[in-house]
Amino acid sequence: DASRKMTENGVSSRAKVLTIDTMNPTVKKVEYAVRGPIVQRAMELEKELSEGMKKPFAEVIKANIGDAHAMGQQPITFFRQVLALCSYPELLNDSTFPEDAKSRARRILQSCGGNSMGSYSASQGIDSVRHDVARYIKRRDDGVPCDPDNIYLTTGASDGIVTMLKLLVCGEGATRTGIMISIPQYPLYSAALAELGAVQINYYLNEQKCWSLDISELQRSLDEARQHCNPRALCIINPGNPTGQVQSRQCIEDVIRFAAKERLFLMADEVYQDNVYAEGCQFHSFKKVLFEMGPEYSNTVELVSFHSTSKCYMGECGFRGGYMEIINLDSEVKAQLTKLVSVRLCPPVPGQALMDLVVNPPQPGEPSHEKFIKERTTTLCALAEKAKLTEQVLNTVQGISCNPVQGAMYSFPCITIPEKAIKEATDNGQKPDMFYCMKLLEETGICLVPGSGFGQRDGTYHFRMTILPPKDKLKILLTKVKEFHQKFTQQYS
Amino acid sequence: DASRKMTENGVSSRAKVLTIDTMNPTVKKVEYAVRGPIVQRAMELEKELSEGMKKPFAEVIKANIGDAHAMGQQPITFFRQVLALCSYPELLNDSTFPEDAKSRARRILQSCGGNSMGSYSASQGIDSVRHDVARYIKRRDDGVPCDPDNIYLTTGASDGIVTMLKLLVCGEGATRTGIMISIPQYPLYSAALAELGAVQINYYLNEQKCWSLDISELQRSLDEARQHCNPRALCIINPGNPTGQVQSRQCIEDVIRFAAKERLFLMADEVYQDNVYAEGCQFHSFKKVLFEMGPEYSNTVELVSFHSTSKCYMGECGFRGGYMEIINLDSEVKAQLTKLVSVRLCPPVPGQALMDLVVNPPQPGEPSHEKFIKERTTTLCALAEKAKLTEQVLNTVQGISCNPVQGAMYSFPCITIPEKAIKEATDNGQKPDMFYCMKLLEETGICLVPGSGFGQRDGTYHFRMTILPPKDKLKILLTKVKEFHQKFTQQYS
Ligand SMILES: Cc1ncc(COP(=O)(O)O)c(C=O)c1O
Ligand SMILES: Cc1ncc(COP(=O)(O)O)c(C=O)c1O
Repeated sequence: DASRKMTENGVSSRAKVLTIDTMNPTVKKVEYAVRGPIVQRAMELEKELSEGMKKPFAEVIKANIGDAHAMGQQPITFFRQVLALCSYPELLNDSTFPEDAKSRARRILQSCGGNSMGSYSASQGIDSVRHDVARYIKRRDDGVPCDPDNIYLTTGASDGIVTMLKLLVCGEGATRTGIMISIPQYPLYSAALAELGAVQINYYLNEQKCWSLDISELQRSLDEARQHCNPRALCIINPGNPTGQVQSRQCIEDVIRFAAKERLFLMADEVYQDNVYAEGCQFHSFKKVLFEMGPEYSNTVELVSFHSTSKCYMGECGFRGGYMEIINLDSEVKAQLTKLVSVRLCPPVPGQALMDLVVNPPQPGEPSHEKFIKERTTTLCALAEKAKLTEQVLNTVQGISCNPVQGAMYSFPCITIPEKAIKEATDNGQKPDMFYCMKLLEETGICLVPGSGFGQRDGTYHFRMTILPPKDKLKILLTKVKEFHQKFTQQYS
Repeated sequence: DASRKMTENGVSSRAKVLTIDTMNPTVKKVEYAVRGPIVQRAMELEKELSEGMKKPFAEVIKANIGDAHAMGQQPITFFRQVLALCSYPELLNDSTFPEDAKSRARRILQSCGGNSMGSYSASQGIDSVRHDVARYIKRRDDGVPCDPDNIYLTTGASDGIVTMLKLLVCGEGATRTGIMISIPQYPLYSAALAELGAVQINYYLNEQKCWSLDISELQRSLDEARQHCNPRALCIINPGNPTGQVQSRQCIEDVIRFAAKERLFLMADEVYQDNVYAEGCQFHSFKKVLFEMGPEYSNTVELVSFHSTSKCYMGECGFRGGYMEIINLDSEVKAQLTKLVSVRLCPPVPGQALMDLVVNPPQPGEPSHEKFIKERTTTLCALAEKAKLTEQVLNTVQGISCNPVQGAMYSFPCITIPEKAIKEATDNGQKPDMFYCMKLLEETGICLVPGSGFGQRDGTYHFRMTILPPKDKLKILLTKVKEFHQKFTQQYS
């Protein structure tokens, strides 16, 4: 055939320009467990089930990703009404829509070029949305001022996090930028650092103390890192993913003091700010604590905080809405940031509209207020209940030990894997917790993510499980995990 | 005060962690003219006008960016109906919506986790949307097969372009990846290459021959680049931005042959595929021509093609929808691509839904078909008329010479700038065409982008002007440009 002829003529027609050996080496180093091999296998199993293949289970239950609507959580009616009105403004004449939804839609549309969500917005985000975000932050933080100029709307929090990391990376060899991240971590961080060729500096959360953050561990990790790179930033996730802890005010103050002393740029991932369930726990924003510490800190410490439409009570992941607030960013760097985000033109406008609704929901006295409060409360109460249930059931299993799920959407229990199972896994070139989760998936249809995808202390094993399935399903899931763990332990003992 | 005390204590509290000198140096090199200083000034002027400040004009007319809705173009009714239905599925019970819009919405929602656009989709994009895209491509390309597995949905075309460039970059010094781009170019390309630290290889379009692409120029540019880098990919924009040319089938064939011979990865930016106005011109996709050239080419040449919801007749920029099709991508690299896109979770789902509607609009016999055809035709005819008008009026001005706007949404006329003006600009450290456009903006309120933002042959000057303003406004705009150019020429002669 023709292509073979070409080869005979000496033109190496079959050698690709782009191969695994000639592609960007930093991309190869990226890993992302939340959508890794186990999820791919889960999707295959779903397909096989739908094609009528026989399995030891009737359905695949995905507890691998914080995707609330996919697990049946209902959207907030008001938000979706406004989005429908903005999408198809003809509906503004429809008398079945509440007036507050309409006036909100009109306001958003007025801020869009040509009154259409189909226009590009300013790259930093729609002006009026940034103002609403600033008002929200000020309210949330008991009056600490917030400048709309410091707000950047983003394509989900992911986008903001990667953008800020990108700004921070420079140097080569021993002066290469290092970024401190918690272990366990949300793997977006390690993935972004790998891609940017930055040095990942691990600090370990204290599993014995409910996954809390010890300043002494920060210090150890930083001192070690200074031997071989240039540590420049400290990332914190609060409430924590995958670990579900909620930081105390004292801890946040200590972290800020540490960052100031060690001259580290602070990155606070606060996408779960409404997801706090445990009694005695409360969300404190880094911004607020920073300002309460006085001008010595609030005028100097560089901080960025991220938020998203994907989590909390709304769970609107698919819209890819988010914002970040930057504090004390050097003004020249800020100009560079604005330039950088302009290359991608703008974040999705429907996501911006949604973010606007999240920071500016129906107010008391408005027609949609009552329903909004009811829907929000229902969702948050259900999550709190499921957080409790998960911890309780898992802790009844010998060989599983689970910290309280104080906040966020996940439990990250420690599991005992028998030596024989560890050996079998290692012989197969598999991590023991991957081996465990893969077996769980094949036998029960339950899809969890192995702890190794998030990082864990050597020799310990975990899995991450979301608390998002509806209560009935969650109960079944927990029972199945329990039974599986017992069987697995027996089998390999 | 406290912060000063700290300084006296020897803690350099005021030195920022992140400064212009310590930030990522590749980010600093990024430039993006479409949203550069001239646009910032235009926004200031708008604000000043709204605050009642007196100006020599009543409004700012922005012809700097291909943002159709912002210029008053109306969205396609059917698209927005389906988006409203998907946003707020309660509307499926509303009898005023046409049945085909409802069934389309149901189909999209069924492909979403939990039947909600608020769920994350698969990172590659919703399965059913990718299938619809594949069917569209096959139809468009007269039956050339298309595999849905080769379709990746993206966050606008921008996202896809940057992702593919990212895969291609490797090596250092003389083996660093070089990427060939046309000059003039759409500045996303130069910005992405700067950020990735790749070598930008310029090939010049032939202004004398209607901005066509000469293979001899490709060869010259490639041969020169081989002296100092490793050229790996060739980017083509067709129809062209900012130059508005439409490539002939013959030219595309020649380019493919060149890429095969020189072992270059082809990147075809085809976001303007419906925007062809000039008689005798027609859009030919690179994919189709590649397959018509037989297996010698279609089995070997690596090609990626980009499309977007932002342009054509729909102009839905704000939704950030898009797709790319990859052909002959090495399977291991494809796996890496899938992994890479999973880090950002997924493209915005409303943008995916919109892309689905674009590739699968109402069919003959469906209730919305007639209206859809009418709306699409109206928009495309208006654009064709404005393309013609722009060329004609600009060519009546002495010192302005404008190629036919065969396609896309822009004219890129050559302007004569008098020596005295060039000197004044240069003395002020400004590029002469920036000087010209800035003066035009201050005196008339018209916002265009200087040719230097896109690249041009040394010693020539251009501006880019969109043809998007409504016809009446466009006429005023053209008249004002004409008067300004005459005055400017006189003033500096
Ligand atoms: C801690 C944390 N940060 C950021 C994100 C990114 O979310 P998104 O990009 O959807 O806003 C997630 C998502 O799960 C997360 O858990
Ligand atoms: C040639 C070309 N490619 C890509 C894009 C990016 O468009 P989007 O990211 O909105 O799809 C544009 C936008 O103007 C363009 O002109």
